[in-house]
Amino acid sequence: MPASLAPVQSAEKVKAAAAAIDALQALVADDMREVNKTIIDRMQSPVVLIPQLAGHLIASGGKRLRPLLTLASGQLIGYEGRRHIKLAACVEFIHTATLLHDDVVDESKLRRGQETANEIWGNQASVLVGDFLFSRAFELMVEDGNLRVLAILSRASSIIAEGEVLQLTTANDLSTSEDTYLEVIAAKTAALFAAACEVTGVVSEQGEKVEEALAAYGRYLGIAFQIVDDALDYSAKQATLGKTVGDDFREGKVTLPVLLAWRRGTDDERTFWRRTMEDLDQQPGDLERAIHLMGQHNALTDTLERARHYGAMAKDALAIFPASDAKQILMGVVDFCIERGY
Amino acid sequence: MPASLAPVQSAEKVKAAAAAIDALQALVADDMREVNKTIIDRMQSPVVLIPQLAGHLIASGGKRLRPLLTLASGQLIGYEGRRHIKLAACVEFIHTATLLHDDVVDESKLRRGQETANEIWGNQASVLVGDFLFSRAFELMVEDGNLRVLAILSRASSIIAEGEVLQLTTANDLSTSEDTYLEVIAAKTAALFAAACEVTGVVSEQGEKVEEALAAYGRYLGIAFQIVDDALDYSAKQATLGKTVGDDFREGKVTLPVLLAWRRGTDDERTFWRRTMEDLDQQPGDLERAIHLMGQHNALTDTLERARHYGAMAKDALAIFPASDAKQILMGVVDFCIERGY
Repeated sequence: MPASLAPVQSAEKVKAAAAAIDALQALVADDMREVNKTIIDRMQSPVVLIPQLAGHLIASGGKRLRPLLTLASGQLIGYEGRRHIKLAACVEFIHTATLLHDDVVDESKLRRGQETANEIWGNQASVLVGDFLFSRAFELMVEDGNLRVLAILSRASSIIAEGEVLQLTTANDLSTSEDTYLEVIAAKTAALFAAACEVTGVVSEQGEKVEEALAAYGRYLGIAFQIVDDALDYSAKQATLGKTVGDDFREGKVTLPVLLAWRRGTDDERTFWRRTMEDLDQQPGDLERAIHLMGQHNALTDTLERARHYGAMAKDALAIFPASDAKQILMGVVDFCIERGY
Repeated sequence: MPASLAPVQSAEKVKAAAAAIDALQALVADDMREVNKTIIDRMQSPVVLIPQLAGHLIASGGKRLRPLLTLASGQLIGYEGRRHIKLAACVEFIHTATLLHDDVVDESKLRRGQETANEIWGNQASVLVGDFLFSRAFELMVEDGNLRVLAILSRASSIIAEGEVLQLTTANDLSTSEDTYLEVIAAKTAALFAAACEVTGVVSEQGEKVEEALAAYGRYLGIAFQIVDDALDYSAKQATLGKTVGDDFREGKVTLPVLLAWRRGTDDERTFWRRTMEDLDQQPGDLERAIHLMGQHNALTDTLERARHYGAMAKDALAIFPASDAKQILMGVVDFCIERGY
């Protein structure tokens, strides 16, 4: 049923995917409690609006996939220290800061099924609390004191911002190439996934090969994750996605499903895409027509195929590590990122 | 002529103040050329909108007071290394990032006499390029590799964000205390002035007393600078200030001149302040009446007196350093910050 708002993934696979994230959470449950404690502890400020606003987003039931990856990487490589706890919190702070700024930039009203912070407290507070969390992330890193970790995470932060700006300049431009699309998502999403995994390798001091493998796993996983996210914007059920279906469409964000449907479209269809995505002249029924066209041209199913390609690369990046529960679970996380319905 | 838009400072003192900043620029002219080169070099990105937008603000003729202070601190303490060049650029990047976000938060249309970046490229790009510059600042610090410098500047960044949020929560609230006002400006402005001076002390490794003295000088100077800035918003000529006179008034920002006029006002005047600052119900002539009331109650002249108090503390903080050209000039910079007409 590609022409409807139903998920493109099979219900069975979605269920298996959910089991994978449960297994990941179970694997690192003890460490994650400490991470959550650190997050709550370090988002405090005498300026009460800061923990109030940050807490709204942090307590809103995100999966905390990135810090989970930081912790699971530790199990994969047999790291026995405690430094990854603080770094996992730091990764989540950077992620939260970018979410706050993204929601301002995208004028989003809903995230994870709740009103966004900018809807409740306004853009001003969201921008500034994002800045605070970002600075606080650096304070946490400095406390850890590893200069290579600092280099990796400060570089990742620059790359994220570059990716977001690049995305802004490609919005409403249907001539965007698939390469540019990949450049945007590699920067805005995959860079932090990669850093989240890599930093555990750095503090465990097991050498370059281990760090590279972890970074590659994170990077490919992040690319797959974002590609699927972009597909879900045209296919997920609003209740499970926790955001409004069609957000990207309404903003004229040129993501992979749009790129494929546009490239495979007739002249008449291209006129439709130009009006809706470039001129942002949208009428009732346009989102449904967009989804219908994507179905007709296999744009959503092929988008997921592209994601599976990067997912396979993520799994192969783990080849250097011996079999273990952690490895099995991290393989499952790849499936989760691809087959998830939310 | 306190009841007019004319400067509260005497023309003679304004002229002497300008000479002080000229002397500061001459003192560190060679180093500053390298700082400017580093700034231009490190704001580059393959995403062209980034150097374009950042360059607009960076090239707009700001005084670059903070990096100048980083460099002059080096001369004051006889530092002969080159590490302060990169740190000065880093301080200016942090400052520029906060300006970009401030202009979004304040919805400013003019800065330094030019259209703001958010007016030209929109809020979205300003938020994201601010994030980029902020991340880039951390990359520069990491390259320097001094963990204490990293701690000082990441802490300063958190404090700046805290101060900005606190300012947001005190806007339109005439019951704000002078203590809270001071807390806001110490955080949003003085923290970076302090860090800008302190970091040179850290890399020159001359001990805690030197670092403390430099930090104290910067902190008191920053407080004086911001108090004067808040007075100038009701008194400077638009052409020299390079921003619109009355911006704070229009936003209902409760700064020291307002606090003093409010506290010294009659019941009738307080009704006026409540309507204009708390309800933001403003009519033509209201700004002129606000300035008139400030004149009647010596609110602007007493605001400058408060600034002089912190200026004196800044000068005294330099007591531990022997007489030198640099010391003389840094003393003069205090006068500049207080007596400047812009």
